[in-house]
Amino acid sequence: MERIGYIGLGLMGKSIARNLLRASYPLTVHNRSRGSVRELVDEGAQAANEPRSVAESSDVVITNLPDSDDVESVVLGPGGVVEGCRAGMLFIDNSTIKPETSRKIAERLEQAGVEALDAPVSGGDIGAREGTLAIMVGGRSDAFRRAFPIFEAMGKTITHVGESGAGQVAKACNQVMVAAQMVAMGELLLLAQKSGVDPRRVVEAIRGGSAQCWTLDVKPKRLFSGERSPGFKAEMMHKDLNIVMDTARACGLPLPGTAANHQLFRAMLQMGMRDLDNSAVIGVLEVLAGESLREPDA
Amino acid sequence: MERIGYIGLGLMGKSIARNLLRASYPLTVHNRSRGSVRELVDEGAQAANEPRSVAESSDVVITNLPDSDDVESVVLGPGGVVEGCRAGMLFIDNSTIKPETSRKIAERLEQAGVEALDAPVSGGDIGAREGTLAIMVGGRSDAFRRAFPIFEAMGKTITHVGESGAGQVAKACNQVMVAAQMVAMGELLLLAQKSGVDPRRVVEAIRGGSAQCWTLDVKPKRLFSGERSPGFKAEMMHKDLNIVMDTARACGLPLPGTAANHQLFRAMLQMGMRDLDNSAVIGVLEVLAGESLREPDA
Repeated sequence: MERIGYIGLGLMGKSIARNLLRASYPLTVHNRSRGSVRELVDEGAQAANEPRSVAESSDVVITNLPDSDDVESVVLGPGGVVEGCRAGMLFIDNSTIKPETSRKIAERLEQAGVEALDAPVSGGDIGAREGTLAIMVGGRSDAFRRAFPIFEAMGKTITHVGESGAGQVAKACNQVMVAAQMVAMGELLLLAQKSGVDPRRVVEAIRGGSAQCWTLDVKPKRLFSGERSPGFKAEMMHKDLNIVMDTARACGLPLPGTAANHQLFRAMLQMGMRDLDNSAVIGVLEVLAGESLREPDA
Repeated sequence: MERIGYIGLGLMGKSIARNLLRASYPLTVHNRSRGSVRELVDEGAQAANEPRSVAESSDVVITNLPDSDDVESVVLGPGGVVEGCRAGMLFIDNSTIKPETSRKIAERLEQAGVEALDAPVSGGDIGAREGTLAIMVGGRSDAFRRAFPIFEAMGKTITHVGESGAGQVAKACNQVMVAAQMVAMGELLLLAQKSGVDPRRVVEAIRGGSAQCWTLDVKPKRLFSGERSPGFKAEMMHKDLNIVMDTARACGLPLPGTAANHQLFRAMLQMGMRDLDNSAVIGVLEVLAGESLREPDA
């Protein structure tokens, strides 16, 4: 089996790395903070001190980092993956970053004989833990075929979208829909409550019709119990919407709906809710409404 | 079996009435334009000339009409249901109208000994034809129980949401989510295309993740084949969003996301697309983008 190196053990990365271990891949891990590294070492992974040494001991290097600059510096910067790589290595990026950064990294690695795939994921911490993520892949077909068994250890819907960067474009598109659903969910729950109708009954009533979505299937139960921890952090949702709006600007596309949603997630960060789940955008609407979603009687 | 009268044989009403016939209910129908009436008479229904006479020959009268004023005049106006009703009759409204109008009609009918349920539906023309609608019901529990077998002939997810008007509130909430999904779908399809990525591949990639929804499951295939006919008319979507925004105004709730979507559906009507499907709101975005969603090569 290919030796895998995994860099970036955040909320998503740690669960994905664990699923690779469970699938019996020899695994080397690296992360800035050491807690997650120790956990995975206890479960059978090797630790490496920097991205370069991860690359030196791996056939396939995977990154899962917050933003475009982080991936660029971990791969192309000093002590980065590019310094430890050799021809025939495969690079996969599970991060959600700008399509243009993915393309730039792929070009640089190609010069070193390394194939690169952008492979951002969707499905939240639940999907990462349960190995049911949607994986959106950009890059060459032969690299996609080589990576397929690895993707099968992390997710369920695995799609080769197109050339380098196409996975990131698909993820940007994904986040357009997710942001819209999160905001709409917040608005409709408060509309029900303010109209004197139980939001729980409303969710039951509408889940089986045209409004059906993953968001309504998964999130209301958590909100009704007062649970607003991530899941998927508001800060990351806002970052992803930055990518969406930058990508749309670059290709000359107005996105009036997404623009409004983007502003609400920005407000969420400014209101001190950056570490909450993206479904907690209802918190911004609660402030606007002067009324909070009621939790069930204790 | 209860004798049913069905008033309003539009895109949804005709299919629902047909399913009641198939479930062997004795059926009397009325509609302003006569074509649909003749179709259903050929299939075994009786025709009636006005709402009053529908009520006279029915135990349960159901309406399915465009807007609040239409239902009010058909039920409470001259020659209306109220003139032909008697104590013990049940009234059900499948229309999507203002919650306050539903409450007003229920109060008036109650004075005549008639129980009333607001029971708007969701699931589009497909759901109406296949009998898989979501039905959101407001009114008393005993009336809900009496109506339940009738609802089972029309739909699949049948929820007693609360008191009179609560079904309409749930439907307003439903349309908040549907409008958000339709706009987001249009934006993401154009974002993919303008970024040089095949929107078909993007839809395949994101359908299995957090973006999953009925809208992405059902609508893109139609759009990709150039099909923008309803389904569910843009004009009705805009009317439903009028109800949402009026209801939100009445309870003092700002809805920033829905407000933006509402404006896009209004633009759709002004651009001459009122008779197209609600998914055709992408047409507004195409004008803004200066580029149309490409259909597959002929």
